[in-house]
Amino acid sequence: MKELTIGIDIGGTNTKYGIVDRDGNVVFQGSISTAEYEEFRDYFNGLAIALRKATESIPFAHKIIGVGVGAANGNYYKGTIERATNLKWKGIIPLADMFKEEFGIPAIITNDANAAAVGEMVYGAAKGMKDFVVITLGTGLGSGFVCNGILLNGKHGIAGEVGHTSVNPAGRFCNCGKRGCLETYVSATGIKRTVYKLLADHLEPSELRGISFDNLTTKMITESAVRGDVVALAAFEYTGRILGMKLAETVVHTDPEAIFLFGGLSLAGDLIFKPTIKHMEANLMPLFRGKVKVLPSGLQNQAAPIIGASSLVWNYLDNNKTQLQEEVY
Amino acid sequence: MKELTIGIDIGGTNTKYGIVDRDGNVVFQGSISTAEYEEFRDYFNGLAIALRKATESIPFAHKIIGVGVGAANGNYYKGTIERATNLKWKGIIPLADMFKEEFGIPAIITNDANAAAVGEMVYGAAKGMKDFVVITLGTGLGSGFVCNGILLNGKHGIAGEVGHTSVNPAGRFCNCGKRGCLETYVSATGIKRTVYKLLADHLEPSELRGISFDNLTTKMITESAVRGDVVALAAFEYTGRILGMKLAETVVHTDPEAIFLFGGLSLAGDLIFKPTIKHMEANLMPLFRGKVKVLPSGLQNQAAPIIGASSLVWNYLDNNKTQLQEEVY
Repeated sequence: MKELTIGIDIGGTNTKYGIVDRDGNVVFQGSISTAEYEEFRDYFNGLAIALRKATESIPFAHKIIGVGVGAANGNYYKGTIERATNLKWKGIIPLADMFKEEFGIPAIITNDANAAAVGEMVYGAAKGMKDFVVITLGTGLGSGFVCNGILLNGKHGIAGEVGHTSVNPAGRFCNCGKRGCLETYVSATGIKRTVYKLLADHLEPSELRGISFDNLTTKMITESAVRGDVVALAAFEYTGRILGMKLAETVVHTDPEAIFLFGGLSLAGDLIFKPTIKHMEANLMPLFRGKVKVLPSGLQNQAAPIIGASSLVWNYLDNNKTQLQEEVY
Repeated sequence: MKELTIGIDIGGTNTKYGIVDRDGNVVFQGSISTAEYEEFRDYFNGLAIALRKATESIPFAHKIIGVGVGAANGNYYKGTIERATNLKWKGIIPLADMFKEEFGIPAIITNDANAAAVGEMVYGAAKGMKDFVVITLGTGLGSGFVCNGILLNGKHGIAGEVGHTSVNPAGRFCNCGKRGCLETYVSATGIKRTVYKLLADHLEPSELRGISFDNLTTKMITESAVRGDVVALAAFEYTGRILGMKLAETVVHTDPEAIFLFGGLSLAGDLIFKPTIKHMEANLMPLFRGKVKVLPSGLQNQAAPIIGASSLVWNYLDNNKTQLQEEVY
């Protein structure tokens, strides 16, 4: 019998799922829409049907031993999704219990950045590291901390919200209700806002003047910057400066070996890494300078969120062998 | 045979030491000057003589099983003190090795705030908590983090330097070489600087106008505030506002159950706690509001640094029973 897990990444637009083996091979993957379901119950039923179909594809002798879920505001201790700002469904959703009831297998839930951090440790570039941080740069900015080799969940299961530290208390409005949060500057949305601010304030010609806010993507800004567009280049410099300044604060909290950048914005390579590292070092307490690496994630591919979510189960199993076995068999 | 430990707190001015039993009772305590020794070797010899004298006071059947040391820039992994800004001795001092050579017992070294955090967990108000932060408010601002029930040391053994996060990159000069660090605003020295800034900027009469910077103490500012001195009151309000704003950032990193304030400034009670809590809550990401307690340390007495340092040994022993036993016997 081969043991397999299901990894699920619940994003605001789509939900990606896959069946993953112990070595991180995705033996099946698919996706359903998240946004089209107004009611959570309907969404869950749609997901359950898709997962049943997926499990039909695996050999009879194999066994699914658990489900790992990465979702914004996923609570590790309670197995719930709580008032996620990027999902339609309000209140507290008891997702782990629903999986257990539907499939009879345990589910482990955490926020998407924590799932990415565990994925990085189990399959990615953080193998063997005991103290590191993963920063996910998507629609928002997520963060996951591993300290002493253990995922940092915190007392209430919501640790790692570095995206909501303050850049400027009177700054850009944030979905969380505050102003000036880091993710309003450093994220796919943040760099778009920066491009628009630069277009508003300056007179420089830019190919980005022809693109609407809704149509503008990180990929377009990256490509423009590569072609030498002065506004796109300035937007990356500004984004890296803010990220570097704030990473200097994160570093003195937990003293990590490395910080991994994951997601769209991190694919811009030197455009984002150079200013980030430069300004992190400049703003660091001297004792820490030259000690902390800023690196690209080792999981930069389509299946990474699924692998990251599935790794929650393997990681839990490694740390709590007996408990999960008892729950499962 | 009763097991005892030695706890040592190396401060910039004085070094306090004591012999402590498993229940946190200090059976002997004393102190020597830190500042008067120009050379570290002379200081260590003076300390060794004092410690030998101290151990003569304990019954023959008792055994000292280890030494715990809290010192600025103490490195837990290496057992060294590294370039501490508030100590005269430069370079890297191999203190743990020196203790082992001198006394034949293991020594555990960490920075003073980490020692306070372990002390809070072993003997203080954090008993039973697995995720909390201790902020020490002395000449500087130190911080110690416990996450998942384990002291957070970080990759390089220097985690918890929250005193060197940034309040204002163009702000007050800091001993660390940067500008605008939190500890230049929130510490015994920080509140003095704030009082002097207020006296410079405003015209209000204040009894503090008659006291020189060198003579001004946190105790004096507290007593003036209690008597209704408008400058002293404003200084506490300002200090609490800055501390609250920055604690809101710390909270979203590690999601603690509580933050304990320890040391001189924290003895001012409501004067410091009220504005700190108010501004922490106001600046917190809404998801965290109302969840994290800000409390006075449970170790607010003269012997606390000694108890905190000694607790390093007990805590290490609890977590690594066999290793230390083997090292000791």
